[in-house]
Amino acid sequence: MTADPALLAELTTILGPKGLLTEAADIAPYVTDFRGRRSGTALAVLLPATVDEAAAAVRAVTARGIAVFPQGGNTGLCYGAVPQAGVVIGLKRMRRLRQADLHSGLLTVDAGMTLAEVHAEAEKLNLQFPLYLGSEGTAQIGGLIATNAGGTGVLRYGAMRDLVAGVELVLADGRVLSDLGGLRKNNTGYSMTQLVAGSEGTLGVITGAVLRLAPRMQSRADCWLGFASVDQALEVATRIRATFGALVEALEMIDRAEASYVVRHFPDIRMPLAALPDWSLMVQLASSRADDVLAPQLEALLAEAMEEGLIADAVIAQSEAQAENIWHFRHSVTEANKLTGVGVVLDTSVRPSEVAGFIADADRVAAARFPQAERAIVAHLADGNVHYILMFPREFWTALPDKEAMELEVERAIHDVAIAHGGSFSAEHGIGRKLTEEMARLVDPVRLDMMAGIKAVFDPQCLMNPGALLPPRG
Amino acid sequence: MTADPALLAELTTILGPKGLLTEAADIAPYVTDFRGRRSGTALAVLLPATVDEAAAAVRAVTARGIAVFPQGGNTGLCYGAVPQAGVVIGLKRMRRLRQADLHSGLLTVDAGMTLAEVHAEAEKLNLQFPLYLGSEGTAQIGGLIATNAGGTGVLRYGAMRDLVAGVELVLADGRVLSDLGGLRKNNTGYSMTQLVAGSEGTLGVITGAVLRLAPRMQSRADCWLGFASVDQALEVATRIRATFGALVEALEMIDRAEASYVVRHFPDIRMPLAALPDWSLMVQLASSRADDVLAPQLEALLAEAMEEGLIADAVIAQSEAQAENIWHFRHSVTEANKLTGVGVVLDTSVRPSEVAGFIADADRVAAARFPQAERAIVAHLADGNVHYILMFPREFWTALPDKEAMELEVERAIHDVAIAHGGSFSAEHGIGRKLTEEMARLVDPVRLDMMAGIKAVFDPQCLMNPGALLPPRG
Repeated sequence: MTADPALLAELTTILGPKGLLTEAADIAPYVTDFRGRRSGTALAVLLPATVDEAAAAVRAVTARGIAVFPQGGNTGLCYGAVPQAGVVIGLKRMRRLRQADLHSGLLTVDAGMTLAEVHAEAEKLNLQFPLYLGSEGTAQIGGLIATNAGGTGVLRYGAMRDLVAGVELVLADGRVLSDLGGLRKNNTGYSMTQLVAGSEGTLGVITGAVLRLAPRMQSRADCWLGFASVDQALEVATRIRATFGALVEALEMIDRAEASYVVRHFPDIRMPLAALPDWSLMVQLASSRADDVLAPQLEALLAEAMEEGLIADAVIAQSEAQAENIWHFRHSVTEANKLTGVGVVLDTSVRPSEVAGFIADADRVAAARFPQAERAIVAHLADGNVHYILMFPREFWTALPDKEAMELEVERAIHDVAIAHGGSFSAEHGIGRKLTEEMARLVDPVRLDMMAGIKAVFDPQCLMNPGALLPPRG
Repeated sequence: MTADPALLAELTTILGPKGLLTEAADIAPYVTDFRGRRSGTALAVLLPATVDEAAAAVRAVTARGIAVFPQGGNTGLCYGAVPQAGVVIGLKRMRRLRQADLHSGLLTVDAGMTLAEVHAEAEKLNLQFPLYLGSEGTAQIGGLIATNAGGTGVLRYGAMRDLVAGVELVLADGRVLSDLGGLRKNNTGYSMTQLVAGSEGTLGVITGAVLRLAPRMQSRADCWLGFASVDQALEVATRIRATFGALVEALEMIDRAEASYVVRHFPDIRMPLAALPDWSLMVQLASSRADDVLAPQLEALLAEAMEEGLIADAVIAQSEAQAENIWHFRHSVTEANKLTGVGVVLDTSVRPSEVAGFIADADRVAAARFPQAERAIVAHLADGNVHYILMFPREFWTALPDKEAMELEVERAIHDVAIAHGGSFSAEHGIGRKLTEEMARLVDPVRLDMMAGIKAVFDPQCLMNPGALLPPRG
């Protein structure tokens, strides 16, 4: 596959020699997802240095009917950035801070800035950008907006859709939709920024953004609670939220199986309770006020709940080290899972009030259809985001003739349970090219119709990240 | 103007006798805005009791090419609910609470519930629905979503777009787009709920919604600060926000002129500072924790700022009565303005960092073009929502040959200043039928193009609230 020489000449003029990659070796990192699970092809990789270059390059490409595949840091889990012929447009040469606005609590940035770079800029203002996830050194702001990234701060601060106050978007025809005002109040029609967040590159190329900052945390309290049931954990979580309101930073739930994996494989990480409970809730409160006293009121709330028999056991961290230990335990689950077996990890969400029912029904389905697996749970309880995990013994999995088919079977079975409980089959990872068939199968056809219509308004020839997010029209 | 008898017969079958108004006297309240400033006409008023009735009725009407004008509580300020022929669809018979979900912090409601009714339902859960505005007894949830209503809680909780977790929308063709999951995390494509919020009835009829609740406040601190400049007020506001974070409930700014109107007309309302400052900032902090101690830390922050010469004078309320007095003063500005003269009140917003520059430039324009008027300011400072007011002497205004032309001239002049500072000409009141020409004049044509395209996807015949929000295509 080769590109039209006239197009390459035009792109070289627009982008300069640093802005265009055409050699197979240079293109290779852009056509495979970071886990190496899926590969595509591309005629070229465009690396614009400015929004004007990006707009002119997109226009040159789409004028020839060639597709454009926007790519951020290529850290997605659903193959949304894997190109299918056409050209990749990468943002890594667009990583300027455009404006730091302390009094408005806003940063205006090029979309190619990494999350870690944004964190550093926010710290210079003595503020924080409260989106936290593992790939922060690689993930770029444009990609994080396009996928409406979540992470560990969603409970308190929301996902990327809540944190983005404006976007700059290059449309398929090369026009630029600039919505970088960053106003808290602006009632002049449909919110373009909110529409673009989560659109996975299907509406255009995000080249700039305005991000909302938050105060930094100065005081905290952390605890580990043990429960006999999800219902009891939820009741205590609701009380904590009603009392501490916006100070609740994390409410993470794991089941006995998941806790046992960490204990088994990481003997140095202390499990603070005397015995493994059926359900564990790890809680963090945090305040922007220096010397805010959180622990005593938390203790009083927990003591009352224990007297009522709601809590089986509880430990409030008495030192920074004890607090760190709780979150070290929590952050070790992914590694522990890898050491335990082959886990099929679901990204389902339901309302918090449906979590217990969802887990119970999923357990029944799993016991009947996948008796070889053990169930483990890692849940952001107050978001209702339940990572339901079926842990298969490695020997069993290795012997499977078609592993991908098995994975799909598990996913579909648990997705159905989530939908039956009014939930979603993709809470935070998005759709990409992995779940478009599930979109067709599980999403309301009226909503799909409106989405397809909106897509056609922004991209009438369907040249912006075709094949991602939206199911094929039939 | 009369309706096709076959249509009326069909609507009677769908809606029942209570669901259809056709007598002029019955229709009258629906065709004029609540201030009696603008009137339209309607063939009939439809009052469905269920979403199925609403959908069938809309389908019957649009199938005949007749327009549908959705109306909530008819409390808008921009004539967005004034019909232009066609039929009005009112929601007042749809006011059921569908579900109260304590553990998810969500209410699912019919769109015809009033804001006051929603407040009462939230209180039954010992939570609050944090949208507060004067017309709460009349304004309905559907209208509040359609106009992305703001009010006094926006700084802390956001506007309606931030508070709505789902909508149910009857489309022009009678299909129902149901997005009532209310999930905190759901990455399955474009957010329909976020698109519908602020769409002013142009995409369909909102018949149901999911609303996010928040904890109730148990402790508070209130103060009144005096400043010599907006810059100083902003600097202190930024420090208060960095320290108290999500506990900042209100940061309201008024200028000397506005304060003097209240003092002049309401001698019983105490102005707590010894002398009227050029700029006043009224601050409220509130915490969901019982017995949270806020005043001492606020005092320390203010003492430091006073030592630096940032604050001219400050009073922290020492009792509930003193606190109430501050907010009684603030809430008396509208009444005081009416008693002072004829005020042309702008609804502009800019970033907080641009507030001082915007006011200075607007002052220059006003002094040159409207020397008869005195400038007054009422601003939600941290939202950047500046109600710039030009107060004309009543005798001058009464003698004007064309008052509407003068109002328009003032508005356009100040809108231009807001736009020059990267701001918006409609922060919270919306566009309705009042500001569509300003939409055409001041909004980026690319954005208008995309909006018109989206409108056509939802409503290809342009029968849903035609004439509102979007400028006429020409």
